[in-house]
Amino acid sequence: MDENSIYLDHGAATPLDERVLEAMKPYFSQKFFNPSSPYLPAVLVRREYEEAKSVLANLIGAKSGEIIITAGATESINLVFNSISGHVIVPNIEHQAILANAFCKDSTIVKSNTKGLISPESIKSAIKPNTQLVSVALANNEIGTIQPIREIAEVIKSERQNRLMRGEKMPIYLHTDASQASGLLDINVARLGVDMMTLNAGKIYGPKQVGLLWSASHVKLQPLVIGGGQERGLRSGTENVAGTIGFAKALEIVIQHRNFETKRLKDLRDMMQNELINNFPDAVVSGHQKHRLANYLHVAFPRIDGERLVFILENRGVLVATGSACSANKANRSHVLDAIGLSDEIANGSIRITLGRLSTQDNIRTATEIIIEEVRNEYKRLNT
Amino acid sequence: MDENSIYLDHGAATPLDERVLEAMKPYFSQKFFNPSSPYLPAVLVRREYEEAKSVLANLIGAKSGEIIITAGATESINLVFNSISGHVIVPNIEHQAILANAFCKDSTIVKSNTKGLISPESIKSAIKPNTQLVSVALANNEIGTIQPIREIAEVIKSERQNRLMRGEKMPIYLHTDASQASGLLDINVARLGVDMMTLNAGKIYGPKQVGLLWSASHVKLQPLVIGGGQERGLRSGTENVAGTIGFAKALEIVIQHRNFETKRLKDLRDMMQNELINNFPDAVVSGHQKHRLANYLHVAFPRIDGERLVFILENRGVLVATGSACSANKANRSHVLDAIGLSDEIANGSIRITLGRLSTQDNIRTATEIIIEEVRNEYKRLNT
Repeated sequence: MDENSIYLDHGAATPLDERVLEAMKPYFSQKFFNPSSPYLPAVLVRREYEEAKSVLANLIGAKSGEIIITAGATESINLVFNSISGHVIVPNIEHQAILANAFCKDSTIVKSNTKGLISPESIKSAIKPNTQLVSVALANNEIGTIQPIREIAEVIKSERQNRLMRGEKMPIYLHTDASQASGLLDINVARLGVDMMTLNAGKIYGPKQVGLLWSASHVKLQPLVIGGGQERGLRSGTENVAGTIGFAKALEIVIQHRNFETKRLKDLRDMMQNELINNFPDAVVSGHQKHRLANYLHVAFPRIDGERLVFILENRGVLVATGSACSANKANRSHVLDAIGLSDEIANGSIRITLGRLSTQDNIRTATEIIIEEVRNEYKRLNT
Repeated sequence: MDENSIYLDHGAATPLDERVLEAMKPYFSQKFFNPSSPYLPAVLVRREYEEAKSVLANLIGAKSGEIIITAGATESINLVFNSISGHVIVPNIEHQAILANAFCKDSTIVKSNTKGLISPESIKSAIKPNTQLVSVALANNEIGTIQPIREIAEVIKSERQNRLMRGEKMPIYLHTDASQASGLLDINVARLGVDMMTLNAGKIYGPKQVGLLWSASHVKLQPLVIGGGQERGLRSGTENVAGTIGFAKALEIVIQHRNFETKRLKDLRDMMQNELINNFPDAVVSGHQKHRLANYLHVAFPRIDGERLVFILENRGVLVATGSACSANKANRSHVLDAIGLSDEIANGSIRITLGRLSTQDNIRTATEIIIEEVRNEYKRLNT
C-alpha cells in the first residue's frame, strides 16, 4: 500500500499485527515440527499449540476442549451447517457463507427491519418443531448493525425448555458468526448465551486463513474433513500451529484494547458521519444508528454511482469498499441493501467505510475532506 | 530445535524456506488486502495471487484454472471424495485421510505386496461398472514405496475407452496424493496420466496449512465449503494470498533442485542403510528397494522397542519417527506395516528416517554412528 493511502476497508481485511508475526515466527523454521511427532521438541510444539487454544478459549469464556481451529470463518460456518439435519433459521442479511448453507437445508429466512435489525420475535415465530439451528451474525458485515443476540438466546433457551418439558429430543442451537464483531464487542459466549460461535483471525490483525468454531459440549458436530482425526476428529489435517499461536496473540491484543479502541473509532466515525451529513443532507446512513459497530459507516449519496466514487477516491488515495468484499462475484447487487429496502438509486450510490487501527484523527479528517470534495464534484457533474 | 539436533523426520514436517518466507512477507502487513476488494492495490493482490496459481499450474504441467488452493492435503483429499458418488478403489497402505474417506463410500481396498507396491493388475481386477475413483498415493508416506502410477493410469484409460465404446456414461478418475513425493519425483500431471492430484506445501519447505487440488477440466467437483464462491465456487472463503505465493515459490525451488537433491539424498540414505545393515544383518528395511523415495529409510531392528529407541535417539539429539506422524492417534499400530505383512516383532522395532534439506554428509554420518551405538546398547540390554 502506498504510504500516503488512507485505508478505510478494515471490514474486508486487516494488516497483520507485527507482534502477532513475531509470535508466529519461531514456528516457521525453528519449531516447525509436526505436533504429532513423538520427540520432545514436537511434544513441546503440541503443548504450545494447545496453550494457544486455551488462551483463545479463555478469551471467549469457554473451555479449551471446545475450540476447533479452522481455515477461516467460511469453513467454521460450513462445519456448523454440516452438523445439522433439521430445519434452520437465518436472517436475510447474513453473509453468503450462511445463506448458501441455509439454502441447502430446510430453512426459514427471517426478514431484517430497515435498520438491519433482527427481532427476537421474528426468530421465535419462525421456530418449528424440527428447528435445529438458528444462526445470526453478531454484527452485520455490510452495514454493521449489532444484533440482540442475548435476547435471541433467551428465545432459544425457552424453546429448549419447552421441548424438554414436552419430552421432545430435537436439539436447538444458536450459532453466531462474530467474525466482524470480535474486535469491538463482548464475545464472551456465556454472556452472549450462544451454543456455537465463529471467529476469524484475519479480521482482527491476525493471520489470514485461520478461524475457529467454538461449540458448547452439548453440541454434536459432524466433521467436514476426515482423516488423521486431529481436533477431536472434527477437523483432520496437521494442526495449524503458527496460525493458532498468531490468532491467540491477535485476539488477546484486540480484547485488551477493545474499550479504548471502540471509543476512539466511534469518535472518528461519528466525526466523519456528521461532516458528511452536514455537507450532504440527503445522504443516507444505513444500519442501526445506536446498535452499530463503532468502526462502520455505510453511507449512500443518492443518484451518485458508488462504484465510480470508489475509483475516484482511490485516485485520491482513499480506499473504501462498494459493498461486501467477501463475495467473489461482485456483479451481484448486495442482498443486504435489498433486505433493508434501499431503493436502487440509494443502494447504487453507497460506499462502505470501515475504520480500524490504520485510522488516525489526521487521516480521517483528510479522508473526510476528500470524500466531500469528490462527492461534490460528482453532484456538479450530474447537474450540468 | 537445538542447533546440534539432527532432524531426520522430513516426512512429517519441513522447515519453512527463508526465500519462501521472504516471498510471503509483503502480504502480511503491506499488501494485506482482500483480493475481492475493488481498488487497485487489492486488484493487484488478486493478480499476484492468480499469477502464483499459474506458476503452480505450470510447474505440474497444468492450466491455472484447474488448480484449487486448499488448507492442505487432507482437505484436498476430502474434496476429491466429496465429489464421488460411485464405487472407489484405494490401496490398503494409503494415508488415513484417503482410507477414512474410502470407508464412507462403496469401496474396494486393494492389497499391496510386501514391498508396499500396488500392482496395476490388482487395480484392474477391482474395477466394477460403477467405479468412479481410483486413488493411489504417488509414494507411500510411511515406507516411501513409489507406485507405478503411469501403468495404473493406463488401466484407467483403457477402462474409460471400454466404457465409451459400450456407451456407458459413468466416469472413472485417477487421483494421486503426491504430497510426500513432490519434492523428489516428477509430478507432471500429463506424464503421470492422472485426473486429479493433491499437493501439500508443508512437505516441501513451504507454508503449512496450504495445499492444492489439481483436477482436469473433465472432472466434476462438488465443493466441501460453500459461501462467497471463491475458487470457481469449489472452495469458498477469502483466498490464501500469502500462502499461495509461498507455495509457488517453494514448489519452484524444490523442482529446480530436484535432480541434484534426489541424488544427494539417495547417496546419504544408502550410506546410512548400508552401515546399519552391515552392523545389524537382521535389520529389516521396508519398502521397495528400487522404487522408493530417495530420502526414506524405514528400518526395523527385530525385538527392539522402536518407541523406546526413538526416545533414546532423541536424548542423543537424533530426531526420528516411530511410524507415520500424520495420525493424531498414535496408539494405533501402523496399518501400513500390517498391510506389508511385518510381524509384530519386526514392526515394533521399526523407526522411520526421512532425510531432507537439513541432512548433510556430516550429520548423517554422526546420526548413523549414534543409531548403531544405541541399537547395539539395546541389544546388549535385551541379551543380559
